[in-house]
Amino acid sequence: MNSPINYCPQCSEPVRQAIPAGDDRLRHVCDACGAIHYQNPKVIAGCIPVFGEQVLLCRRAIEPRLGLWTLPAGFMELGETLAEAARREAWEEAQVEVDLGPLFTLFSLPHISQVYAFFHGRMAEPRFAAGEESLDVRLFHEHEIPWEELAFETVRRTLQLYFSERRAGICGIHVEDLAPDRHGPIG
Amino acid sequence: MNSPINYCPQCSEPVRQAIPAGDDRLRHVCDACGAIHYQNPKVIAGCIPVFGEQVLLCRRAIEPRLGLWTLPAGFMELGETLAEAARREAWEEAQVEVDLGPLFTLFSLPHISQVYAFFHGRMAEPRFAAGEESLDVRLFHEHEIPWEELAFETVRRTLQLYFSERRAGICGIHVEDLAPDRHGPIG
Repeated sequence: MNSPINYCPQCSEPVRQAIPAGDDRLRHVCDACGAIHYQNPKVIAGCIPVFGEQVLLCRRAIEPRLGLWTLPAGFMELGETLAEAARREAWEEAQVEVDLGPLFTLFSLPHISQVYAFFHGRMAEPRFAAGEESLDVRLFHEHEIPWEELAFETVRRTLQLYFSERRAGICGIHVEDLAPDRHGPIG
Repeated sequence: MNSPINYCPQCSEPVRQAIPAGDDRLRHVCDACGAIHYQNPKVIAGCIPVFGEQVLLCRRAIEPRLGLWTLPAGFMELGETLAEAARREAWEEAQVEVDLGPLFTLFSLPHISQVYAFFHGRMAEPRFAAGEESLDVRLFHEHEIPWEELAFETVRRTLQLYFSERRAGICGIHVEDLAPDRHGPIG
């Protein structure tokens, strides 16, 4: 998740772990130049691309969870909004232009220090293709969803809430905390 | 926002900016050990601590915006949920125990690569005190809010939405993108 900090990225001297003055947590501090190197949770943004009654899923061509199915989502980049990140990931992973709707789910995954945000998404046409990080991209009716082959708990939970609300004719925003899933420590 | 990366935090050799294979953005890459050092947006979590009709604000004892008023909020730490971060910040900045309610606002601030999340918060008692990062902490009725002395646009917008919904007797979640405010580039 976070690469190791052995040396100061500012001046190259070795760093040590210490609690800086006025702080209450261990940080990577550099005695040579005084820099403190903070590490913080990362944000993943994605969407539920919907065409008619069907939902678009991507089969992962990369680790973790290579070969399993996911909603298009990925790390938010510097300078982006959540919606821009979600739209970009849909394009990169599924070559699909999504008309982004409201936020649907927002998850905290403290065990891996990630925050996930999924938006509703509408596809005007069934136009898509596997991007570099996908082996396959397909539209699924609800009864076709490969529940046992979903890559992440965030995706399983988002799809479960999506279909349940669609059947009930309601539309909410869900803010939840998720624990590690049955595949192990990755959300 | 993000400290400079001149040297590889993994092996201490100088890094250079390059677009890694399969990527489309400049990253800090280390030719010596092969590490790629990504930088990503940071998450700030906070809340609107409410006691009866009043809202608790903190006067900042630190830069940026020293001396201006804010809702308690701060950088989410590794291993936390959004709600835990919001609760911790209320305790650190205002020594207040907040009964956290639902998410209220979620902002993207692409100009400073930050995502802000504010939750509703209820105070069972009017017990609070200035934490290390606050000069003063006070309860404000709506007509007392120091609108011209608020530290951040995220705070101004959250309070504006909060009072407007309270008057209307409604309660929503607001997902918005914010541009730089009149104080300059910090959100």
